Amino acid sequence: MTNVNIKAICQQARQAALQLAQLSEADKNQLLLAMADQLEADSVMILAGNAKDMAAGRDKQLAEAMLDRLLLTEDRIKTLANAVRYIAALPDPVGQIRQMVPRPNGIQVGKMRIPLGVIAMIYEARPNVTADAGALCLKSGNAVILRGGREALYSSMAIADALHKAMAKHGVNPAAISVIPDPDRALLLELLQQKDSVDLVIPRGGEGLIHFVSDNSKIPVIQHYKGVCHLYVDQDADLQKAIALLINGKVQRPSACNSLETLLVHQAVAPQFLKLAAAALASEQVDVFACEQSALYFSNAVLAQPQQFDTEYLRLAISVKIVSDYDAAIAHIQQHSSDHTEVICTQNISTAQRFLKQINSAVVMVNASSRFSDGGELGLGAEIGISTSKLHAYGPMGLESLTTEKYIVIGDGQIR
Amino acid sequence: MTNVNIKAICQQARQAALQLAQLSEADKNQLLLAMADQLEADSVMILAGNAKDMAAGRDKQLAEAMLDRLLLTEDRIKTLANAVRYIAALPDPVGQIRQMVPRPNGIQVGKMRIPLGVIAMIYEARPNVTADAGALCLKSGNAVILRGGREALYSSMAIADALHKAMAKHGVNPAAISVIPDPDRALLLELLQQKDSVDLVIPRGGEGLIHFVSDNSKIPVIQHYKGVCHLYVDQDADLQKAIALLINGKVQRPSACNSLETLLVHQAVAPQFLKLAAAALASEQVDVFACEQSALYFSNAVLAQPQQFDTEYLRLAISVKIVSDYDAAIAHIQQHSSDHTEVICTQNISTAQRFLKQINSAVVMVNASSRFSDGGELGLGAEIGISTSKLHAYGPMGLESLTTEKYIVIGDGQIR
Repeated sequence: MTNVNIKAICQQARQAALQLAQLSEADKNQLLLAMADQLEADSVMILAGNAKDMAAGRDKQLAEAMLDRLLLTEDRIKTLANAVRYIAALPDPVGQIRQMVPRPNGIQVGKMRIPLGVIAMIYEARPNVTADAGALCLKSGNAVILRGGREALYSSMAIADALHKAMAKHGVNPAAISVIPDPDRALLLELLQQKDSVDLVIPRGGEGLIHFVSDNSKIPVIQHYKGVCHLYVDQDADLQKAIALLINGKVQRPSACNSLETLLVHQAVAPQFLKLAAAALASEQVDVFACEQSALYFSNAVLAQPQQFDTEYLRLAISVKIVSDYDAAIAHIQQHSSDHTEVICTQNISTAQRFLKQINSAVVMVNASSRFSDGGELGLGAEIGISTSKLHAYGPMGLESLTTEKYIVIGDGQIR
Repeated sequence: MTNVNIKAICQQARQAALQLAQLSEADKNQLLLAMADQLEADSVMILAGNAKDMAAGRDKQLAEAMLDRLLLTEDRIKTLANAVRYIAALPDPVGQIRQMVPRPNGIQVGKMRIPLGVIAMIYEARPNVTADAGALCLKSGNAVILRGGREALYSSMAIADALHKAMAKHGVNPAAISVIPDPDRALLLELLQQKDSVDLVIPRGGEGLIHFVSDNSKIPVIQHYKGVCHLYVDQDADLQKAIALLINGKVQRPSACNSLETLLVHQAVAPQFLKLAAAALASEQVDVFACEQSALYFSNAVLAQPQQFDTEYLRLAISVKIVSDYDAAIAHIQQHSSDHTEVICTQNISTAQRFLKQINSAVVMVNASSRFSDGGELGLGAEIGISTSKLHAYGPMGLESLTTEKYIVIGDGQIR
């Protein structure tokens, strides 16, 4: 553990947040564009930092997938800079006023959107998060404290150096984007105690990291453990649409959290649909864990154990169950949902409306792929995380989730 | 400690919440009206429970003010029932859809308001909270777990019995409004661990209770410690308005959290304004703790110690300070604010706009009394609490603060 003063870092971030909250949208956009340019201009320095991380990663024999996630190239730095430019182009939520309503005594009452203040991002080995989260927090007027994993430390510090150069040129306090220069867990623990200067903690990474953060934080934490997403094929489903939703939901990117993990099929359409599904899943080499009734339709299905209906496979595997009716499907989802994303396939508008109302997961869909459960696809512009707990934000989080609303009141001397 | 199974109470509340979330607004309103009638019909039983609490309170020699807060009468039960009727008449936020926006691929994306699920209210000796919080949570589709103080236990249980009778007649699970029948702290601690079945904790009471709850809770907590509200009298203030705001803000109900605790005065108007203020405050017998400069204007002022500018007096006392200019006022407020309510008195629209933007307390006012920092006055209908931390809710909380938004997506078979 090096000599890092966590408390001072947090207090300086809070100081910087006061300045950031007052920047105009134009100022923030200019700064973001300058940060993007500086990332490209400093690519040699960033690649040098990344080379150190890569060498250490190879020494530690990190898995190839992990090394690839860690690797930066000229092209990837360009992509990173373009992501920052994209964030500059998004509308700024800060300062938006939601209606001004006159009260009987003549005072006007409205709500104005403001930054949260200081946000701590806890993440693992993705160096791009450093630029991405830095840009999203800055755009929404928040200071950010970045605590990435050991594997990407030198890359992150080099990226932050480039951002700080642009900030210095624009007279913005560098503490607005702070990098914790040591990924020691004791320091992380200390960071999680700073509730007087940090407003929100967003952990991104594996379940272990998220549990550690939420178990130990005195600061509110946005939680997202896993996505056990369901597709329910209703008796009134268009079976061709259902097959497309099934295959896209499972196969497109099996490791993403919006991937389908469980298929529920109404018994009335099970014989016809499961024959089609069995062929389609087999041709994509998806492992099937089936309930007793549905197993008959698959040549290679394994009988599903009860815990499988709570499993996030994150690979080409799916649980399958036949349900007696709509209510049984709802009951199954309510029992096993991870509050992430659930999909119904039906042509019946009444059934669709009931599903939209009855299922209270973060994203509820009718006849659309679970893959659209993503900040970009839902129109948020960019995503800083996804929440599966209902407080403050629920579902994919964009810029608005990094803000809150205060009341504003304009009177002319009224008293009570 | 009696034999109370906290975990079972919470799990039953979660079960009940599923039913509540699906009730129509009409169903909920009918139930609330029936609950109000039942409170009046059961007044003898409720008064009997209250008599037990009052007798115990007198034995324990509770202060008169406390005993008065505890006391129920026929009239007070009528007031309580009318508050429930008033909540029935408020608009239901559940099910509201915030725009449906088409995406380029034709899917429609919207947000639908849903209940949080299960809310735990932790409060002290006010029996009316039992009916009030029960009605607000029910109206917003949430189950509630009520943990009141020992002093009001029999009153609370009698009130809950009446509510349960009405719920039984309407086929609503009584676990939707659960009372913890034992105020033992060990049980409270256990309640605060039930993060799998409780979504939000709202403590109402003294700072000690709120600190205990937020230090020990694994569940998100709405925090509100204190209100150190500021009035800044600008160089461009209308001094007559300023005097009215000052006296109303300090004198109307000194013990409420929206009471003024600090007066800041621009040096340009200090001589003229402080003469008026000294006379007005003296005639209301308000104790003044003044900075060195301002002390000259008061006949009986005590010199303010630094910590006084962080003090919530909750009585007829106020801190006074002369500031050199607008920026000094902002700096003082940012340093000492409790993020509750701040007021500027000015006729200058540019100064007013700057203040509305620069101060990020929960309620920011121009030329209006801090007394309007109240759910009813701001138009929320009813208030379940007030938050001075920015996550989820900020400022007075009405029905909408007891809900969140999920994404809804309607497609026609689109995949990614």
